[in-house]
Amino acid sequence: MADYRTSSLKSPIDVAEYLFTRLQQIGVESIHGVPGDYNLVALDYISKLGLKWVGNVNELNAGYAADGYARVKGMSAIITTFGVGELSALNAIAGAYSEHVPVVHIVGCPSTASQKDGMLLHHTLGNGNFNVFADMSQNISCCLEKLNDASTVASQIDHALQQCWVQSRPVYLMIPTDIVQKKVEGGRLKTPIDLHYPGNDPDREDYVVQVVLKYLLAAKNPIILVDACAVRHRVLEEVHDLVNKTNLPVFVTPMGKSAVNETHENYGGVYAGDGSQLAVKERVEASDLILTIGAIKSDFNTSGFTYKTSQLNTIDFHSTYIAVKYSEYPGVHMRGVLRKVIDTIDPSKLSAIPGPKIHNEIKANDDGTQTITQAWFWPKVGSYLKDNDIVITETGTANFGIWETKFPAGVTAISQVLWGSIGYSVGACQGAALATRDSGLNRRTILFVGDGSFQLTAQEVSTMIRLGLKPTIFVICNDGFTIERFIHGMNADYNDIANWHFKDLVKVFGAKDGSYKTFQIKTKDEVNKLFVDPEFNAANCLQFVELYLPKEDAPRALKLTAEASATRNAQQ
Amino acid sequence: MADYRTSSLKSPIDVAEYLFTRLQQIGVESIHGVPGDYNLVALDYISKLGLKWVGNVNELNAGYAADGYARVKGMSAIITTFGVGELSALNAIAGAYSEHVPVVHIVGCPSTASQKDGMLLHHTLGNGNFNVFADMSQNISCCLEKLNDASTVASQIDHALQQCWVQSRPVYLMIPTDIVQKKVEGGRLKTPIDLHYPGNDPDREDYVVQVVLKYLLAAKNPIILVDACAVRHRVLEEVHDLVNKTNLPVFVTPMGKSAVNETHENYGGVYAGDGSQLAVKERVEASDLILTIGAIKSDFNTSGFTYKTSQLNTIDFHSTYIAVKYSEYPGVHMRGVLRKVIDTIDPSKLSAIPGPKIHNEIKANDDGTQTITQAWFWPKVGSYLKDNDIVITETGTANFGIWETKFPAGVTAISQVLWGSIGYSVGACQGAALATRDSGLNRRTILFVGDGSFQLTAQEVSTMIRLGLKPTIFVICNDGFTIERFIHGMNADYNDIANWHFKDLVKVFGAKDGSYKTFQIKTKDEVNKLFVDPEFNAANCLQFVELYLPKEDAPRALKLTAEASATRNAQQ
Repeated sequence: MADYRTSSLKSPIDVAEYLFTRLQQIGVESIHGVPGDYNLVALDYISKLGLKWVGNVNELNAGYAADGYARVKGMSAIITTFGVGELSALNAIAGAYSEHVPVVHIVGCPSTASQKDGMLLHHTLGNGNFNVFADMSQNISCCLEKLNDASTVASQIDHALQQCWVQSRPVYLMIPTDIVQKKVEGGRLKTPIDLHYPGNDPDREDYVVQVVLKYLLAAKNPIILVDACAVRHRVLEEVHDLVNKTNLPVFVTPMGKSAVNETHENYGGVYAGDGSQLAVKERVEASDLILTIGAIKSDFNTSGFTYKTSQLNTIDFHSTYIAVKYSEYPGVHMRGVLRKVIDTIDPSKLSAIPGPKIHNEIKANDDGTQTITQAWFWPKVGSYLKDNDIVITETGTANFGIWETKFPAGVTAISQVLWGSIGYSVGACQGAALATRDSGLNRRTILFVGDGSFQLTAQEVSTMIRLGLKPTIFVICNDGFTIERFIHGMNADYNDIANWHFKDLVKVFGAKDGSYKTFQIKTKDEVNKLFVDPEFNAANCLQFVELYLPKEDAPRALKLTAEASATRNAQQ
Repeated sequence: MADYRTSSLKSPIDVAEYLFTRLQQIGVESIHGVPGDYNLVALDYISKLGLKWVGNVNELNAGYAADGYARVKGMSAIITTFGVGELSALNAIAGAYSEHVPVVHIVGCPSTASQKDGMLLHHTLGNGNFNVFADMSQNISCCLEKLNDASTVASQIDHALQQCWVQSRPVYLMIPTDIVQKKVEGGRLKTPIDLHYPGNDPDREDYVVQVVLKYLLAAKNPIILVDACAVRHRVLEEVHDLVNKTNLPVFVTPMGKSAVNETHENYGGVYAGDGSQLAVKERVEASDLILTIGAIKSDFNTSGFTYKTSQLNTIDFHSTYIAVKYSEYPGVHMRGVLRKVIDTIDPSKLSAIPGPKIHNEIKANDDGTQTITQAWFWPKVGSYLKDNDIVITETGTANFGIWETKFPAGVTAISQVLWGSIGYSVGACQGAALATRDSGLNRRTILFVGDGSFQLTAQEVSTMIRLGLKPTIFVICNDGFTIERFIHGMNADYNDIANWHFKDLVKVFGAKDGSYKTFQIKTKDEVNKLFVDPEFNAANCLQFVELYLPKEDAPRALKLTAEASATRNAQQ
């Protein structure tokens, strides 16, 4: 590729510098990934620009970490190498796509010359096809750009990053080794990428608002139900204002957990069909109008499709359309509609009947023994959490159990209820802990992960140690894949795992004496003591807790959902 | 799906039983994978049929292990769950595709009813597309079958397994939860799947044989050069017979390492262009006719395309065509051609000039210090290896270093020179060790892996422990990604890794005292002592060796290849 117009550039800078500066402008301060020979030259720019290189232990973990980072800091980036590196990250990227998380996946690939010549290079299938891996990312990226031509690279990057933010989903950038140091116009960097959401067409928006208002004002006991996409598509301010203006009771789904302030007097609990607490279930299902905001009505988010609500009583607010009962209004973003509803509505004309009051039900779930049960533990966690904690729960007993935990204000909950890839939470914990440090906030980052899931991605704890991060990690030791046991094979050996000495990993992974603490907790008394220990609560170093629960115990909601899954799997 | 004709089946058996019995018939005795709710019911059949479930720690490791198992035992199988599980394994499956390894990838997926209804299930992208993940496997599988219809399942399975074997590449089987227990005709199992290679068209074959013979008899100093596809497409018997009948000198490429008996008097060493030992390079490049068998002339297999041989002096034998100089003969498998050449040729008319004699050059590479250098270590390994060992080398210093090791007879070498995914060797070691035990042979299984690569997949050591396997594992401790350092960034922090206490992992992963041994080896004297220790040589338990080498030391061939890669990456 000729340096077609380098001489005409006013302030030429290298492509890699352009890309990383753009990421920096959006708030990405650390770059996740693993080095590989097709990305090494690009990596040199990271420290040059004052960004931080994470250097994950493998690409899947890096992808999970990038997902966690983005959920806390708004966006993230991961760099992998062609073929071997990028494919190892695919599961994590697909998860970010599924769960609407904006992750920029940058893949260093062979030079344009090598590609043109169809060279038989390492990290290829040996068939001269250099597009096959990018093709595999096509359906899990909202934008895919091959940066093969210096004359278009800058606008391709800007477009991709803009799409990543606005659509809140992964984008894929494939950058050949010889393009990394090509020159592009640096002057473009003075104009930030436009991350504003395109406004709705005013007529269309007004029309929908009127429909919404009509039904809302007519309803006898309307409620608000907040779900994942309210978080991912960033309408929490609107949700908050809507609750305060209307005084309606507000509920969250499992995927919407932490979207609203759970200490707010209007907060009514977690609704997930039959998995809900009884008072919550009754109140939501008795409502004649449910405003769902950003709903993802998936099996695990609804205790196996046990919603007993009718679409005839529902208005769904989404990022690309609004559905009022069975009428759909495409091409309208919920943000504008919600804002206009807030601005327009006369709350005195609304019927706002208070919802149930939710508490952490510790005593009611105490069976009088010293055994730490799932039913007792999760409400108990509510007494340990503090304002602004980041709480990560793994797919399994933890992300079902956390339904029973009422959060303090400002908590950020991270889990993967739709995608549900086990092992995710360990990587996500690294990313989340780093993101809060990068923000200068150092919120406590607390992970709950099952022993089976932990084993998939355990070595990411070493990245936390190397970076000096200070999460508190609870590994729930209950002898294997409990969620699978409840779906099928309660005593099957395929649901067993190897017996690790989990807490000893911290030292093996290189933590220096005095820079970490480990705990082994087997009784309720020990939990009680730990949760009021000022040092433990201060979380001034990495803390690793082995927490022993019985093998065949699971949160109520998990049992229900697992049963529904087993039935559906067998369905003819 | 109706039980269309179950009543007409003479000996009805469940689909899962059919599938696993077929695998068993082909010699797959252990099934790799990770449980997930869409595959659990299928897993029940494994132990029922007397097969063994491996239960890997994660899917990528499972894929690598399946690859290693197949390289030792002929074929392997891995079971993952829809979406999350299968995507985590893709890098390993792509590696098996790239390197021609027959792995059956079985993916448990949602029921046909759930798919038809487009249910919003966990492990989906939330968009009702149930084909997107299978599509991602399309270009890394030689056959892809969706087992959605009981009336065709048995023939689909037979076809896929036959293709897997004959093409020696991965196949993908997607099995919905409701199909697992459908009935198929068990009587089919009495007829084994036809794994014979289709013979060549006799006229076409005769024609090529005559051309080969013409040039071979006219050549003054012909040689044989054996590469990866001779192993993968199973023509080693033909290679062996060809060498013995013709008495020609025989060389191997790095990917062909262990394809021929290196103690055979005709063995002349490893040829890889400029990375070869001088005598080898001179002899091969002076040859006026090179018979290459199963060549993959990739960058890392040729020290960066430094072959100084001419296509005008070359006959290439492949599994789908033969190339004589610049003439190509498509549709002819090398097996038949080689066999007919062997049967026809009159060796007395051949000019068979002996090749160089290769030895493990230990003394010549001793710098007189106690530092363990790459140059000294690899020939030294030759003195430690025994007949029939399985030797696994990771991409990096190990798989370049092993060029300098002359093997005893019967060794199987495993590495991933083309695909080159770091971390591969740890999984592959588990699979290889299990495969030899499943064969009743218990050959020593010896792994050489760098510290950086080891970290990616370290937890697979726990599977080895749980299964009671007894590999000997050398972790080369040299502070990070040495192969990357030689390509770019010798002192860059992105090529550094966390400092683990590697050998302590064995205990943490659950190995019982007395069931394993660990070693820390830092001097040549310690290596010398270890390699003659009878107990260590007996390898009666899992042995884990931390082996310290200098950070900036690398095998000669790696330095050359890395330099060529760096140049190519920068090429405009």
